[in-house]
Amino acid sequence: MSKNYLVDSRNKVKRVPERGHYDQATAYAILDDAFICHISFVVDGQPFIIPTLYGREGNKIYVHGATTSRLIKHLEKGFPVSMAVTHLDGIVLARSAFHHSANYRSVVIYGTARPVDDERKEQALYIISENVLQGRWEESRKPYDKELKGTAVLEIEIEQASSKIRTGGPKDDKADYDLDIWAGVVPIKLEAKAPIADALLSEGIPVAKSVTNLYQE
Amino acid sequence: MSKNYLVDSRNKVKRVPERGHYDQATAYAILDDAFICHISFVVDGQPFIIPTLYGREGNKIYVHGATTSRLIKHLEKGFPVSMAVTHLDGIVLARSAFHHSANYRSVVIYGTARPVDDERKEQALYIISENVLQGRWEESRKPYDKELKGTAVLEIEIEQASSKIRTGGPKDDKADYDLDIWAGVVPIKLEAKAPIADALLSEGIPVAKSVTNLYQE
Repeated sequence: MSKNYLVDSRNKVKRVPERGHYDQATAYAILDDAFICHISFVVDGQPFIIPTLYGREGNKIYVHGATTSRLIKHLEKGFPVSMAVTHLDGIVLARSAFHHSANYRSVVIYGTARPVDDERKEQALYIISENVLQGRWEESRKPYDKELKGTAVLEIEIEQASSKIRTGGPKDDKADYDLDIWAGVVPIKLEAKAPIADALLSEGIPVAKSVTNLYQE
Repeated sequence: MSKNYLVDSRNKVKRVPERGHYDQATAYAILDDAFICHISFVVDGQPFIIPTLYGREGNKIYVHGATTSRLIKHLEKGFPVSMAVTHLDGIVLARSAFHHSANYRSVVIYGTARPVDDERKEQALYIISENVLQGRWEESRKPYDKELKGTAVLEIEIEQASSKIRTGGPKDDKADYDLDIWAGVVPIKLEAKAPIADALLSEGIPVAKSVTNLYQE
């Protein structure tokens, strides 16, 4: 049985509450199906938002960046953050303009971002790399110490989360079902296309297994 | 010639500054190629983040929601927000783990969200609808007054923006080009799949033109 996160005014889903989920299993499934997130944080009352790559290990999220970036500079002090991952799964076309919607799976997490100390940095980067493309880390030239030093890695322990999921077709007002208006769903999917080799790739090197695996799913 | 937004510490791109753009034309092109954004705002020092549909009219962004939602409740007072739109265009595989990257187009805008008054609400909703699926508004049953009343619409005048774009293949360290490691790009694309008609659709209603147009691009 999956643990539930504490539900309070911070993470309670207020709009269409029946779409809300507060269990870890749902949050983790949404997190593990993407590798780009948006992180929100505050500096002097001003909200900032940054898209970034991430990975999950247990109840922790890792993100990385150059030690010079705004996100990293501010978050190293231990700032509160919220982070969202959203999968757009479809456009929902109702008969009425009002009932148009989207199918989606989204999760918002709340936590405090803290720097990952040097000994755990490589492991955290491995987790991010595996989340972006499984198996790629092992194929790559591993980081040198100076590369690790130039990379700041942050961890966010998930304190609270709320997931929101909408699936299925449109819901129209009763009277509108008689209208001669097409209704349904346009499914939307993020897809990997055929890989493009680097122009400087030496001859005779086959496409990496981590890449060919992508197309066998 | 496209106008440039003011560049200061709030929107200056610090990490890989050569990827940064501050002109309206670049920001608008990224905004107009998506319809899901993430909005960041602050309540009592706590950062919040919400995914939502949007549309752009001139230098304004419109978002909507039920009048009960957290976003709408807080933003109606005129809160500062930042908003991000991110297109993931590819995974960039370098020979070294360190130089892995992503191809993307992202824009972050800064502004203040304010409620759209009743007379302009329907026009704002039309703009959002057209951004999600062009032509659909005209096909749909238009909103009743009571539906408009139950929908809060916010406008965000774009005060500042910064766009960030990465394209092309991996950039490796000179010494790594001799390694027998495949390098290149896995292009990624958000694609519309074949439409699914509502199970309750009356017989003989053809797929809407707004939908069939999607597949002719």
